[in-house]
Amino acid sequence: MYEATVSAPVNIACIKYWGKRNTKLILPTNSSLSVTLDQDHLRSTTTSRADESFEKGDRLWLNGKEETVKEDGRLGVCIKELRNWRKIEEDKDSSLPKLSQWPLRIASYNNFPTAAGLASSASGLAALVASLAKLYSLPQSASQLSLIARQGSGSACRSLFGGFVAWREGSAEDGSDSLAEEVAPQSHWPEMHALICVVSDAKKGTSSTSGMQRTVETSTLLQHRLKIVPGRMDDISKAIQSKDFATFGEITMKDSNSFHSVCLDTSPPIFYLNDVSKSIIAVIEELNRSSGEIVAAYTFDAGPNAVIYALEKNMPKVLGVINKFFPTSEESRDPFNTKAAELPEGFNVNVVREGGWEKGAVKSLIHTRVGDGPRTLGKEESLLGENGEPKVLA
Amino acid sequence: MYEATVSAPVNIACIKYWGKRNTKLILPTNSSLSVTLDQDHLRSTTTSRADESFEKGDRLWLNGKEETVKEDGRLGVCIKELRNWRKIEEDKDSSLPKLSQWPLRIASYNNFPTAAGLASSASGLAALVASLAKLYSLPQSASQLSLIARQGSGSACRSLFGGFVAWREGSAEDGSDSLAEEVAPQSHWPEMHALICVVSDAKKGTSSTSGMQRTVETSTLLQHRLKIVPGRMDDISKAIQSKDFATFGEITMKDSNSFHSVCLDTSPPIFYLNDVSKSIIAVIEELNRSSGEIVAAYTFDAGPNAVIYALEKNMPKVLGVINKFFPTSEESRDPFNTKAAELPEGFNVNVVREGGWEKGAVKSLIHTRVGDGPRTLGKEESLLGENGEPKVLA
Repeated sequence: MYEATVSAPVNIACIKYWGKRNTKLILPTNSSLSVTLDQDHLRSTTTSRADESFEKGDRLWLNGKEETVKEDGRLGVCIKELRNWRKIEEDKDSSLPKLSQWPLRIASYNNFPTAAGLASSASGLAALVASLAKLYSLPQSASQLSLIARQGSGSACRSLFGGFVAWREGSAEDGSDSLAEEVAPQSHWPEMHALICVVSDAKKGTSSTSGMQRTVETSTLLQHRLKIVPGRMDDISKAIQSKDFATFGEITMKDSNSFHSVCLDTSPPIFYLNDVSKSIIAVIEELNRSSGEIVAAYTFDAGPNAVIYALEKNMPKVLGVINKFFPTSEESRDPFNTKAAELPEGFNVNVVREGGWEKGAVKSLIHTRVGDGPRTLGKEESLLGENGEPKVLA
Repeated sequence: MYEATVSAPVNIACIKYWGKRNTKLILPTNSSLSVTLDQDHLRSTTTSRADESFEKGDRLWLNGKEETVKEDGRLGVCIKELRNWRKIEEDKDSSLPKLSQWPLRIASYNNFPTAAGLASSASGLAALVASLAKLYSLPQSASQLSLIARQGSGSACRSLFGGFVAWREGSAEDGSDSLAEEVAPQSHWPEMHALICVVSDAKKGTSSTSGMQRTVETSTLLQHRLKIVPGRMDDISKAIQSKDFATFGEITMKDSNSFHSVCLDTSPPIFYLNDVSKSIIAVIEELNRSSGEIVAAYTFDAGPNAVIYALEKNMPKVLGVINKFFPTSEESRDPFNTKAAELPEGFNVNVVREGGWEKGAVKSLIHTRVGDGPRTLGKEESLLGENGEPKVLA
């Protein structure tokens, strides 16, 4: 049986991807950089199987629910490109089974709820690409595979690496140099932890795909942001190399704010931060001020959820202020059993509205850390049953 | 008795003033443009009196509460400069009473609550400058007086004119060309109406003085905004000249969003818009979309309150959507007794969170319109009693 099961991680950008210069190939208007989060806590797992005996046509299930694979859709394009690469290998070596000609069955599963508002498309597409690459025994490097994952979902390319990852915007028209590469491995700075604050939102926001397109078309400030990002990419890479958290954090916060600024400068304006998000920002800024140094850095993607980066030793401080002002309503996950610290001396509680937030304004917390890249799993982890359909259906 | 009572209007900028290149002289980093609102509805009134027999030293009351006039403070500087100009006249014509040497008593009163969150410093300083200019019979033009008002409170310089007013940033080091001038009088486009939505806010925001300074020091996007504003000044001036509301409205909304973008790009970020403000934006954008043209334009200063500009004929539509989603908790003012219209056909109610906002999210509405510049009032309107103290104390 030809089958591969791979898990891939979530990544959260410190330098944000916002804007495409080519919407078909998903070529970005600027480079971006992310931290890969630990798959022990958050992951997408994908099993891909090729079988001559399957009924014609590829089939795919996401969280047990079958999805249509359109040939020219994002999934279809990824599958086609990887098949082409397999075909090249088969043409070079006639002893290889002709997997490229066989129908595929693919099942993918996220171990975190979609409602958590985490970008599941990045880890999901990365797991898909990595599992097919494994199934097809492709010789391509992770950076080369990232060219394919990018076309499935831009930021997915960054989930093909662990640690600290850059997606270079590239300059080639065909996108051949718009790929992901490692800035530093997980092992370089394993003390980098992250606290995800799942924020309740009354209103569904603008999708990132349509939002970033609107920004490209209407924001006057975006052009200036694009001039600022290259310097930030250099500076944050150096900060990572030298494990300089203060600089890492400062740039991370500035770039998150810059990204949300160009969203607001869009017409009509796009708002992803709500009053709770803004209050988390105020609390982290005050934590840093009262600590006399940058010990934590917030960042927000296309939604109200905060991700707060901090070194492991400072996570008690972060949990201290977050627990104090944002009592959660649902179960939180802390595999490190971190004990929250008291507020730092001199912390000005007036940065939050009187009485703090009502229970559930932040629904839950997920404490995790920097992690590794895609992992090949054993047969026992397969998501597909013998018949080529998912073991668990939705 | 040497006394003058003058009232001055509130102004609300369409092209925002945000950033000083000289904090002492209050020289802005960019030109701005505002609409003067009708004094029949919102005004500051100031009575200034000079009397040889007053005890030495100037005294000033704001809304019946005495304020200290520091010599080198903003009020002190305005008074000193106007005295100097009076002195020049006295030196030219020895028959003039030596008012410049006499102590002053000044009382100022706003007819709108400070809690309304409207910038009372602009109308207040303009009334102060205009009343002293009247008391001293100064020959200076309104533009020349605006040089003094500007040093009291930047945007006050624009309240010395009615209609549509530009504050030219100027280039002189001493600020001598950073003054206000009329773009078009009230009579040019009297159909311009405004609806002020007083938004409740749980948290006191950053003061505009400290906020704009932080933006100048830390925002990377501000420099780009400064390059965009001159074109917007030209375009909106032309739109006003030709009474082109669609263009006027589009630029007004874009510039409000641009201003709040650079606030967010500040470190630490500054947020003036809250979730209610954002919801008003969404409703007005949807009103325009469903109307097939720009019939209303929102703008926000350094706080969560919205000011919505619309032509008189379209105000029923604006009131229709605002009343629908933002039931008020306090008395509103509508001197025009405008009847709210139904929602336009095709209006997507899903732009607002389900069920709309709770009563009081918008506290009250004030419907007003473009108005004239400072008015000299009769003796019967004096705020000072015979003894030189306010008739009404706080």
